[in-house]
Amino acid sequence: MQDPVFSLSLPMRLALDEAAAAAARGEVPVGAVVVRNGVVIARAGNRTEELMDPTAHAECLALREAARVLGSPRLPGCDLYVTLEPCALCAAAISLFRIRRLYFGAYDPKGGAVDHGPRWFQQPTCLHAPESYGGLGERPAATLLRRFFSTLR
Amino acid sequence: MQDPVFSLSLPMRLALDEAAAAAARGEVPVGAVVVRNGVVIARAGNRTEELMDPTAHAECLALREAARVLGSPRLPGCDLYVTLEPCALCAAAISLFRIRRLYFGAYDPKGGAVDHGPRWFQQPTCLHAPESYGGLGERPAATLLRRFFSTLR
Repeated sequence: MQDPVFSLSLPMRLALDEAAAAAARGEVPVGAVVVRNGVVIARAGNRTEELMDPTAHAECLALREAARVLGSPRLPGCDLYVTLEPCALCAAAISLFRIRRLYFGAYDPKGGAVDHGPRWFQQPTCLHAPESYGGLGERPAATLLRRFFSTLR
Repeated sequence: MQDPVFSLSLPMRLALDEAAAAAARGEVPVGAVVVRNGVVIARAGNRTEELMDPTAHAECLALREAARVLGSPRLPGCDLYVTLEPCALCAAAISLFRIRRLYFGAYDPKGGAVDHGPRWFQQPTCLHAPESYGGLGERPAATLLRRFFSTLR
């Protein structure tokens, strides 16, 4: 059987690498990559444990790093790849950074805020909604999460 | 006429000081203070311009600083005072840091996410909702914001 990872775009594979690296550090395995014009601008994995900061999610770290690299607090030509459906915090950050397109892996019915929960980008007070595509690389992303949580039990 | 600020609690007056200091730095005037057992643990004003980071809201900065000071990523015995109704980003952060009580000043029908918009703390997927009290020090908080934005036009 073909490895489903081979059918994924390079940025999503890099995001999965970041998620796997996060797991190896004892962090919930989520990874994120910011891309502009085919170039990777920033990549990050979850660091909530290391930084003792429950807001140090992969998306927020990658977005801040991309803003730093590009010298701009707005990233209108940038796309974000993330292995898990963003939560309310990260969905709000994606709006604030003006991300153009969002590609995410596993859907998260419990914590996701894009296609679940508050569905932030569909709220009338949301000032910027990216184009959003979910379920890309869902299987490997979900497998990483499942393995991680099974070792904790 | 009595200055309405005199009727406010000390933490809210400190939050207003932080908001005024933010305005003096050319930042949208919002301030936040974290308190535990009557002691101010952290205080911050908005620094989105200075840090070139649209997520560097007063609440997020004060919460992160409080976690650093207390050496804990969860702040279950802490209360947050903020001059403006928190947005979606900050409401989500308040949940993640497990803040006990939220006291805020001016209501924000356009950007607020506590009593407006997604009403995050009332969402079924919100894992922690603080007790929430709005409209405390609304007049001085709103006056700071109005003055700031009138100078920009």
